[in-house]
Amino acid sequence: MNFASDNAYGAMPEILSALSAANAGAVASYGDDAITARLTRRLSDIFEHELSVFPVISGTAANALALATLTPPHGAILCHAESHIAVDECGAPEFFSHGAKLVTVEGDGAKLTPVSLAQALSHFQKGFVHHAQPATISLTQASECGTVYSVDELSEIGALARARDLHLHMDGARFANALVHLGCTPAAMTWRAGVDALSFGATKNGALGAEAVIFFDARVAADFAYRRKKSGHLLSKMRFLSAQLDAYLEDDRWLKAAARANALALRLAEGLAAIGGATLAHPVEANAVFVYLPDETIARLKKAGAVFHPWGAPAKDGRTLIRLVLSFATPESAITDFLAAAG
Amino acid sequence: MNFASDNAYGAMPEILSALSAANAGAVASYGDDAITARLTRRLSDIFEHELSVFPVISGTAANALALATLTPPHGAILCHAESHIAVDECGAPEFFSHGAKLVTVEGDGAKLTPVSLAQALSHFQKGFVHHAQPATISLTQASECGTVYSVDELSEIGALARARDLHLHMDGARFANALVHLGCTPAAMTWRAGVDALSFGATKNGALGAEAVIFFDARVAADFAYRRKKSGHLLSKMRFLSAQLDAYLEDDRWLKAAARANALALRLAEGLAAIGGATLAHPVEANAVFVYLPDETIARLKKAGAVFHPWGAPAKDGRTLIRLVLSFATPESAITDFLAAAG
Amino acid sequence: MNFASDNAYGAMPEILSALSAANAGAVASYGDDAITARLTRRLSDIFEHELSVFPVISGTAANALALATLTPPHGAILCHAESHIAVDECGAPEFFSHGAKLVTVEGDGAKLTPVSLAQALSHFQKGFVHHAQPATISLTQASECGTVYSVDELSEIGALARARDLHLHMDGARFANALVHLGCTPAAMTWRAGVDALSFGATKNGALGAEAVIFFDARVAADFAYRRKKSGHLLSKMRFLSAQLDAYLEDDRWLKAAARANALALRLAEGLAAIGGATLAHPVEANAVFVYLPDETIARLKKAGAVFHPWGAPAKDGRTLIRLVLSFATPESAITDFLAAAG
Amino acid sequence: MNFASDNAYGAMPEILSALSAANAGAVASYGDDAITARLTRRLSDIFEHELSVFPVISGTAANALALATLTPPHGAILCHAESHIAVDECGAPEFFSHGAKLVTVEGDGAKLTPVSLAQALSHFQKGFVHHAQPATISLTQASECGTVYSVDELSEIGALARARDLHLHMDGARFANALVHLGCTPAAMTWRAGVDALSFGATKNGALGAEAVIFFDARVAADFAYRRKKSGHLLSKMRFLSAQLDAYLEDDRWLKAAARANALALRLAEGLAAIGGATLAHPVEANAVFVYLPDETIARLKKAGAVFHPWGAPAKDGRTLIRLVLSFATPESAITDFLAAAG
Repeated sequence: MNFASDNAYGAMPEILSALSAANAGAVASYGDDAITARLTRRLSDIFEHELSVFPVISGTAANALALATLTPPHGAILCHAESHIAVDECGAPEFFSHGAKLVTVEGDGAKLTPVSLAQALSHFQKGFVHHAQPATISLTQASECGTVYSVDELSEIGALARARDLHLHMDGARFANALVHLGCTPAAMTWRAGVDALSFGATKNGALGAEAVIFFDARVAADFAYRRKKSGHLLSKMRFLSAQLDAYLEDDRWLKAAARANALALRLAEGLAAIGGATLAHPVEANAVFVYLPDETIARLKKAGAVFHPWGAPAKDGRTLIRLVLSFATPESAITDFLAAAG
Repeated sequence: MNFASDNAYGAMPEILSALSAANAGAVASYGDDAITARLTRRLSDIFEHELSVFPVISGTAANALALATLTPPHGAILCHAESHIAVDECGAPEFFSHGAKLVTVEGDGAKLTPVSLAQALSHFQKGFVHHAQPATISLTQASECGTVYSVDELSEIGALARARDLHLHMDGARFANALVHLGCTPAAMTWRAGVDALSFGATKNGALGAEAVIFFDARVAADFAYRRKKSGHLLSKMRFLSAQLDAYLEDDRWLKAAARANALALRLAEGLAAIGGATLAHPVEANAVFVYLPDETIARLKKAGAVFHPWGAPAKDGRTLIRLVLSFATPESAITDFLAAAG
Repeated sequence: MNFASDNAYGAMPEILSALSAANAGAVASYGDDAITARLTRRLSDIFEHELSVFPVISGTAANALALATLTPPHGAILCHAESHIAVDECGAPEFFSHGAKLVTVEGDGAKLTPVSLAQALSHFQKGFVHHAQPATISLTQASECGTVYSVDELSEIGALARARDLHLHMDGARFANALVHLGCTPAAMTWRAGVDALSFGATKNGALGAEAVIFFDARVAADFAYRRKKSGHLLSKMRFLSAQLDAYLEDDRWLKAAARANALALRLAEGLAAIGGATLAHPVEANAVFVYLPDETIARLKKAGAVFHPWGAPAKDGRTLIRLVLSFATPESAITDFLAAAG
Repeated sequence: MNFASDNAYGAMPEILSALSAANAGAVASYGDDAITARLTRRLSDIFEHELSVFPVISGTAANALALATLTPPHGAILCHAESHIAVDECGAPEFFSHGAKLVTVEGDGAKLTPVSLAQALSHFQKGFVHHAQPATISLTQASECGTVYSVDELSEIGALARARDLHLHMDGARFANALVHLGCTPAAMTWRAGVDALSFGATKNGALGAEAVIFFDARVAADFAYRRKKSGHLLSKMRFLSAQLDAYLEDDRWLKAAARANALALRLAEGLAAIGGATLAHPVEANAVFVYLPDETIARLKKAGAVFHPWGAPAKDGRTLIRLVLSFATPESAITDFLAAAG
């Protein structure tokens, strides 16, 4: 009964097989290999756009490298107060960007809104050297609270970014979960809505450790290759990183895995609705359930062996907010057992 | 006939199997798993010393993180002019250390000597704020020219470091190749000789992408975990990184692989000795052969499909220096075919 | 009628004279001169404590260098949302600290409280590598809103810092203004209350451009001299910087200048109390007045030639908050004229 | 008898007077004042070119800020092995540029040559992400050895820079000394020869602490104002910095001061020629004399109270190389006394 994170689970067997298949022979290193070329082609087809694709090994690396590419050292990055880049990356964006400033914005369900962004932007005077200069908006799709921006919501933020001459970055650590929830195309959820750079996640949804930083305009990505090398994120045996992503995308595996995780989350949420004292904190739109549970229920679940994290400060009414994350690989029995122990 | 680099070859089958074995179930992420604990135990046993072990995915990351841990921003790192950290990491040590200075030193076979180091140190005045302050010596074992420091040579440099209050870092991208050449213990080649931090390489010798930064004093490593996270080098599914290193070490696989590569290098060097106009540039002590060959020989080899890199500027006598790297996985036929084409 | 800032005014004549007096002869450069030694002695006497003193030329330099000395790259700095370091230094603390994170906290009158700090700290888990690690609290005395922490308030924050193993930094750009308001000793307002590092400002109160970074424990300051040089803030002709600070302190000039500015601020505030529609936003405890004025009054003042800045967003009731800063050199006629135009 | 450095002497009286003259009234801060505008106009006239002018307080700040503006973090800066930026700035260029690499080149008299530069460039492969990418050449005029590049020499290096798509930076800490030696125009020595950015020094030649970073193309300088602020180098009371530079330039004071220092250096060199065992190490083209003197002569000079620095390692023949720097303010008696003690 492990709901601690989607990264608590391993990798898709097909991805492991792809590593073995990629092992044959001697090939050019550092990305000049056929598998990496195939991956770029495949992603460009999926996104209906020519892409600059840079595989890296972690979401923090993907986010920090992308943000540093979009944001000068004297720039500011607007993001949600609960965003991964603001809370859970130990200041990686500040390090990679050489001291850019993260400006945190509030909003329900860990989602930015044009209103909250405009309010935050009103504090910065353009061209005033004393102020960090807003350069980039970063949003997370699906969000850290398991909610999903609609295409309209994304497009509104994209329009705001364009109007203010800002770049738009999407942290897509759970990109597939958001995509299957919306049922739209990858193009609709990214460049058509104004996204300039995407951290395309695969690790949480079945890779061993593989993400791709994707740019929709090669000029924006001009110095990315140097940043990746200078930060130690260029792999010599790149084929093994690209092979993970390539197998992830092949045969719609990524979509099927995300659809399964999302469905499990909904089933768990429905089961919890029947539990006394349980209240969902956010709509369940991806693969995570945020629920207030009575502390005695939580104690019972822990005793039964359930693994999960409390989220934020305890509520004052004898209940605590917990996060339950579902994965492509979470066994269905985990849900049954959890609900049985909670009930 | 690929001699371009040891990273042109893939991974040991046993390491790929270990990934599959590591895939089962849900485990704690970010290194709090049983495989990572087992790896630390195994390495501590091998080195006969309690170790702080931090797996990362590339040699550049290992070197830059280790050097930044040992060197303050106002510090200087003494290294060979041909060292990987000085030449081939796009300034990663400068980036991770927030602006420390690499001071390059000359020496035969890409090896530092106490004399060349003392000469370089004489230009820096201790406590003089205008000068970067020498903080760390970094040497590469086996070196970028395929030579190996003897234990005595290492100990002399270690003694110099201690006398001058400097840290000593070893870039061990080809640590196993040096070790089997010397036939000594890992302890003799590291902490007993005065090494404070080791970039322990596995990628070139059979992993997919796995190195370990090793410290012999936990106090020195106190902030390493933050540096690793802040630079995006902490893997969520760490088990897959640790499993590579663990399988690499198990059953002396690392030593056998290195011994094979070294033996192939010697065989190739012996064969080349019979080629007209061939001159070895350096003694062959690890898994690389640096040889001057007549340009017409080189042209013939290229035509025959041999893959390798020229090294440095062309010689003036119609010959060029080339580097030939042998790997745990280089087929023996590659050598036979190469010598046939060269002869 | 210039109330835009205290830095709109020039320098004390006695400080200009001190520059001429310091000009004679050839002396050791970079701070090894008699005037710099005398300054350190004088400050140590004034603070009743042996000090490490480092003159620099700007408040931003003083703050950023001090904070970087107290805070590792993976650290977090807690400060008020309206603090100069968060709002008006273009990310200098992030740059000098190599990517530390500023965590902004709310509070009346731009003042931190133990409660607001404890609330902010509750979001950070000690030793959890994903979180920036709180390392330093920075407060501004007098604050950016012209308010002053009492000695008790400072001591409570100092006690919190000690209890949480945090450093305490004071931005004293208007240190003298706060000191004469409280009527306490410099010792009581700093190290006795738990301050570890002080940006001791003189520029706003009569120097040409001179601040001193002061540490109360030489061990904390161990690498400061390198940071100052590496950032270009070590002056070769240091005597001219030290002479400004020395003359500033001599004969209590700094206290008299601050007392005058504070008194002018009180007089202006009293005069404004008689103006229809005027409301003070904060108690006037130093040399600044923050007042809501009707927009028509503001228009009239502008037309009469008054220079000042609006502060934040316009109020919704036809009034705007403006900031009026008084200086050691503001002529009394400026106040009379301003009140006449406003009335 | 102080020959330690030109920064051992104070400031021109006319510059001190200018500070007093600049003190009147309240003016806009941070450079939006009339004196700063007048300075920019005056410099543009002197250089016969529209300029972007940024006053700062130290040569290290000027150099590091200029180089960081010209060089990306993954770039390399080619400079002489004895250059101030490589030897005497504690790694400031690396810090401000976020980790760019200084590549040191040898050459007589601390001067770069097209041949030595081309040789150094041959080690870097364009577009190869493992190599720092050469971005900027930095030369010092007059050099750290008191020699001066001719206009032809500068133009050849400028042509090389253009051909290789590199920026050219001039460290002009002793710009005036070089200019009066050559007797050419500032334009000929800078932008007409291909210089993109100039650190225009005034401190060593009579200011209290004032340099100007000058760009000849405003587009290159686009983000300089942010870099200056973010590094704490923007002065609030900028008028006092601009006034120094303005008075320095007025009435050709800068040229007269440099001419005097150069003439004193020649006179000292001529006098030394008559001293037994004295050998000049470099031609005397600016305001410094580098001379080998017998150790007993040196001991005698020290005893007589002469202040100067040894330069580099002792010669092996019982002589030591010393540096003697002449200043606009060195009294003539210092030369007479020195020669008397040496003779």
